[in-house]
Amino acid sequence: MTQNTCPLCQTDNEDILFRNDLYRIIAVNDPAWPGFCRVILNRHAAEMTDLPIEDRSALMKAVCVVESALRDLMQPTKINLASLGNVVPHVHWHIIPRWADDTHFPDPIWAAAKRPVSTVRSAPDRAALVRILSDCLA
Amino acid sequence: MTQNTCPLCQTDNEDILFRNDLYRIIAVNDPAWPGFCRVILNRHAAEMTDLPIEDRSALMKAVCVVESALRDLMQPTKINLASLGNVVPHVHWHIIPRWADDTHFPDPIWAAAKRPVSTVRSAPDRAALVRILSDCLA
Repeated sequence: MTQNTCPLCQTDNEDILFRNDLYRIIAVNDPAWPGFCRVILNRHAAEMTDLPIEDRSALMKAVCVVESALRDLMQPTKINLASLGNVVPHVHWHIIPRWADDTHFPDPIWAAAKRPVSTVRSAPDRAALVRILSDCLA
Repeated sequence: MTQNTCPLCQTDNEDILFRNDLYRIIAVNDPAWPGFCRVILNRHAAEMTDLPIEDRSALMKAVCVVESALRDLMQPTKINLASLGNVVPHVHWHIIPRWADDTHFPDPIWAAAKRPVSTVRSAPDRAALVRILSDCLA
């Protein structure tokens, strides 16, 4: 996959919460997974170890700031972090708040659902999330 | 889950490739996922953001050294990284080499299999892996 064909090399239709030269942080806005965010490297590279160490550190700082913000705003049972990229080999991190009664818990969200939706949760307040990200990363 | 009941607070039956005061790196030794390693925090903490920043950095350095070693030794299509911990809320990172023809690709290994095993791959040479980890982390 090259820059020309990579869907993460363009930002159309993304709900960007924070952006700098290295990465952007987006809200996934999937009602099934309230609070789900992604940290996406702006340039095209497949693996963390394709990046210089300072870029890896900056990405993980962003991942941890998102984790911390989601914990503060949503009090999930657990946070799930993942960088997979099998479908789109362009470095991006999933940050997913999980609850003990969610449809898949304790399995990963990519497994088969274990139960129907019980508690419907709202996404975190967008302005509050943007403010935390900006305060911690700008 | 407390230290007394947490299975990752004891190391029985683990195939430890490298260990220091903060973490250990183990070979999962699942024939279905050759090369699958875990970086496991030694002490009991649930989330990356429960750790001081220097410990997060050291863990991610270890994750990246494992990633780099597995890429060198196995040339996978992609590396998958994940810190989930829904079942065992004790910080541990999965580092999973993936191949385009593996049973689940491009889905995560936790999804349903998409096809039977085609190519049987060997685990990386254990001594070579141990040497790289020791050279880069000791």
